Amino acid sequence: MRLQAQMPIKLRNKLLGGKKPLICIPIISEDETHLVDEVNKVIKMKPDAIEWRVDYFESIKDFSKVNHILKIIRIKTDDIPIILTCRSHEEGGYKNIDDEVKLKLFEGAIKSGYVDAIDIELAFGKEKIEHIKSLATKKGVKLILSYHNFVETPSEEFMMRKIKEEITYGADIPKIAVMPKEQGDVLKLLSVTYNARKKISNPLITVSMGSLGFISRFVGCIFGSDMTFASGVNESAPGQMPIEEMRRFIEIII
Amino acid sequence: MRLQAQMPIKLRNKLLGGKKPLICIPIISEDETHLVDEVNKVIKMKPDAIEWRVDYFESIKDFSKVNHILKIIRIKTDDIPIILTCRSHEEGGYKNIDDEVKLKLFEGAIKSGYVDAIDIELAFGKEKIEHIKSLATKKGVKLILSYHNFVETPSEEFMMRKIKEEITYGADIPKIAVMPKEQGDVLKLLSVTYNARKKISNPLITVSMGSLGFISRFVGCIFGSDMTFASGVNESAPGQMPIEEMRRFIEIII
Repeated sequence: MRLQAQMPIKLRNKLLGGKKPLICIPIISEDETHLVDEVNKVIKMKPDAIEWRVDYFESIKDFSKVNHILKIIRIKTDDIPIILTCRSHEEGGYKNIDDEVKLKLFEGAIKSGYVDAIDIELAFGKEKIEHIKSLATKKGVKLILSYHNFVETPSEEFMMRKIKEEITYGADIPKIAVMPKEQGDVLKLLSVTYNARKKISNPLITVSMGSLGFISRFVGCIFGSDMTFASGVNESAPGQMPIEEMRRFIEIII
Repeated sequence: MRLQAQMPIKLRNKLLGGKKPLICIPIISEDETHLVDEVNKVIKMKPDAIEWRVDYFESIKDFSKVNHILKIIRIKTDDIPIILTCRSHEEGGYKNIDDEVKLKLFEGAIKSGYVDAIDIELAFGKEKIEHIKSLATKKGVKLILSYHNFVETPSEEFMMRKIKEEITYGADIPKIAVMPKEQGDVLKLLSVTYNARKKISNPLITVSMGSLGFISRFVGCIFGSDMTFASGVNESAPGQMPIEEMRRFIEIII
């Protein structure tokens, strides 16, 4: 039995925050040919959501190409929710992308009507986030705001503050992903998940990364994490497990 | 990666507190015919340990019969460690068994040389436990002392006190099994496991029972629990999963 969100969010035909956590597969190919191939393979795995990690895309600055790819993904994925994520290198992303490019990319994606949610790092800044948020709200696109820490797991108080800050900044779905240095850090992440779930009504995404945090990717849903990331064709983060395995684990534990 | 015990204990050819948690299957048939059948089936599942729940045995007061069964189990199980457990009804056991019978039963089992460990409830009392402990030490039988709570999950401080009390009373292996009422109780049990592992060097067994506590039976090993109970032919407690599944889960997460 898992803790659900008080106010789940509909992403197309899927409920984020409902009875089951959603399993999302990231797509991370670098060019169109490989992206199309990856999408074709991934949709066969029937994920609950697909995340396009556009920071891996070689033509990220060519907005018409990005739009073209988004359209392809949209058509191919049919009714699977699409999340667009663009992380800079310092946010754990693939490339260095300047803020102007990111801003335009998010604007274009929201206006395209092809994406259901976009994932922005909290560090992107209040003003820019609020701008994106207002556009997203108009277009019915949900906003995931993320705090990543690839070095350590901060204190529970700090992580809780980040979740609240994300909500204050306009997150429909707050997210934290932190790196454990020891087993106790995994418990800290699960504990903040559980406490946040009791305090906030939004759907929530939390991850304890790496091999040490591995278990959080499926037991997290028990304590209030509503989406988990599994590997499809490629792994976009350490600790991700194949979707079939993830689905089986979750079926057994919830 | 799991937290191992600083001072693992050898139970025959198995190491309790080592790299992998041991998976124990309880045997709970009521008569000789069914017990023999159950043991035959269970040994094929290659558990790391077998626990005979003698409180289920119809002839529990007939010590020569108990000895006879122990001998059968010993021969059949070859080198698999055997734990003898006898719980009264108020300790979550099957029958009401008075202390005198239990005491004689434990003495007989220890003297028989057939068992590797015995599991006694902490509530059995200091004096009786110390008597058993001194006999067990002479015979090289390990002592598991248990605290069960089938109603709730007490505070972390209380559970930690129980673990320390068990060690003070002579436990080679302290054990706590508590019932969660909500997801936070499962975290509490995992947290006390983790904190106890850092404070004590003995192998440790902890369980959050029932369907809500289900995940503790395999993720507990990450935080310092060294033995988990899986169902073989029959389930002796709610929340136990089949051994093949348990083994698979543990292989993946450690």
